[in-house]
Amino acid sequence: MRAVALGGGHGLHATLGALRRITPDVTAVVTVADDGGSSGRLRRELGLLPPGDLRQALAALAGTGDGGPLWAEVFQHRFGGSGALTGHAVGNLLLAGLFEVLGDPVAALEEAGRLLGVSGRVLPMSAEPLDIEAEVAGLSDDGESHVIRGQVAIASTPGQVRRIRLHTPRRPGGVPAACAEAVEAVLGADVVFLGPGSWFTSVLPHLLVPQLHDALVATGAMRMVVLNLIPQPGETAGFSPERHLDVLFQHAPGLRLDVVIADRASVPMPARLRAAAAELGARALLADVADPNVAGLHDPDALADCVREALGRRWEAVGRDGEESREGPWR
Amino acid sequence: MRAVALGGGHGLHATLGALRRITPDVTAVVTVADDGGSSGRLRRELGLLPPGDLRQALAALAGTGDGGPLWAEVFQHRFGGSGALTGHAVGNLLLAGLFEVLGDPVAALEEAGRLLGVSGRVLPMSAEPLDIEAEVAGLSDDGESHVIRGQVAIASTPGQVRRIRLHTPRRPGGVPAACAEAVEAVLGADVVFLGPGSWFTSVLPHLLVPQLHDALVATGAMRMVVLNLIPQPGETAGFSPERHLDVLFQHAPGLRLDVVIADRASVPMPARLRAAAAELGARALLADVADPNVAGLHDPDALADCVREALGRRWEAVGRDGEESREGPWR
Repeated sequence: MRAVALGGGHGLHATLGALRRITPDVTAVVTVADDGGSSGRLRRELGLLPPGDLRQALAALAGTGDGGPLWAEVFQHRFGGSGALTGHAVGNLLLAGLFEVLGDPVAALEEAGRLLGVSGRVLPMSAEPLDIEAEVAGLSDDGESHVIRGQVAIASTPGQVRRIRLHTPRRPGGVPAACAEAVEAVLGADVVFLGPGSWFTSVLPHLLVPQLHDALVATGAMRMVVLNLIPQPGETAGFSPERHLDVLFQHAPGLRLDVVIADRASVPMPARLRAAAAELGARALLADVADPNVAGLHDPDALADCVREALGRRWEAVGRDGEESREGPWR
Repeated sequence: MRAVALGGGHGLHATLGALRRITPDVTAVVTVADDGGSSGRLRRELGLLPPGDLRQALAALAGTGDGGPLWAEVFQHRFGGSGALTGHAVGNLLLAGLFEVLGDPVAALEEAGRLLGVSGRVLPMSAEPLDIEAEVAGLSDDGESHVIRGQVAIASTPGQVRRIRLHTPRRPGGVPAACAEAVEAVLGADVVFLGPGSWFTSVLPHLLVPQLHDALVATGAMRMVVLNLIPQPGETAGFSPERHLDVLFQHAPGLRLDVVIADRASVPMPARLRAAAAELGARALLADVADPNVAGLHDPDALADCVREALGRRWEAVGRDGEESREGPWR
């Protein structure tokens, strides 16, 4: 079964952790609009794709044999101290080196994936760094909305994000170009996932890359959305589960969904969520998918079980070994 | 045939480039006293072994199949720009990450060697960073000699280096401890190489690590010295080939040699060199080993041919495939 997960950061890590339990053919399509931390420093200093979310996805899909676990640990290791390298993840530096040497982020991620023994593939949503801009209300007393720029600023705004846009800083005024391999992966998938994650800065950006949006609309794959466990402080503070879906619809009105997965305890009014999901063509699947030990984290086994249930007959047709069978009775 | 090459920097790179043409079983024993450039910054910032000379040795022994050439290129790649990463070699950063994650430089170098498809092994001469201190004459008009500290300062001194000492900055007053695997490699070798390279800062330091010195004295291996092509500006400005041997003797009076290899055009007075070599028990082998196209560089093929000639019957006994045979007629 070919699964494609779109996102970034910890949310994507959660989806990938669940999906790798279901199929060896997982493609991560990762946001490239980060401007904070180690990634932001590398992006500003070297003009490269921000590598952090890509690194996280590689680590989430790293192999369990040979050198995989060691290299995943090295990739995730951050330098301490108080010098020029403090806070840089080793994997970010290595990805930056691969980007520069190979001159092609897709080839670079392929090599890094081989090093980590990744089962599946990690792709950027675009081969060029992007910037997010948000219309934010509630930042001043005059009722006007303000434009905020940059992933870090938006993710931590005390205002209410209304809408986001993408910019191509290398080509002012340009339209963000999708990574061709990511478009192909979406079109050829059996199931695609959006969420969980920072809604405006990790989940929605993919929908604003026109070719990726169109592929998501056109694909024959099942479309699943995994909602967050708890509202993020900042960009989605106070958002209900339904509101997440409304915002998704607002940014991609043509997109229909099949399944919306939500954690039972995170949904105060299930009927409302079911109604909001139905408006997008989807059924809502409520289950206990939260990690009981770590607040805000999905339990990968529970999420995998829930995804299997959502796949329903599709899952039975492809079998638990993840073997591909597009000819199954579920097409 | 088991070959061990002791040194650092470009000189060691030249020896390794020649030796890999002769045998797949090459061990590099690398100086760890660098305090300049990317290595020096990493050493000061993170308190680790300076990785630069180790990285160079790994690149010199990198495999030619699979990912070897690519990873060697990535290791050697330096970040440009004008920021915090400028000048750092990617391999230095990756080695630093491996050192921190594994906590053991020998294990870290083993992993890096696997990544680069290294045939043979790269070891540090000591598992702890060391400092070089030099007695330098001619820096003032009063005829006094001065103490200069640090590889960079010594390598570029306008004075005449008389003698060097090693310090253990982590254990003030301590005796430098050899890397146990390096001692074993020297004791088990068929042939060991000293030089070429910056004489005081890359070649002689190994002789001042007592366990390594004793292993070099005790080993049954042939001992070969490869002299530099042209005097280095700085530390050995104006040094004759004989003077290089005198300085070696001065720092390790108990060490006997078998062969001294020198480039014919770099030896103004062959008879003097032969005499100086004979005093150390060695025959001098003069050959055309310089790269005709790049001043100051050895030609690896020519150097390999010369080494084969020097090995003489030993080489015939072990065969051109590098197969080991310590029982050959040449023992």
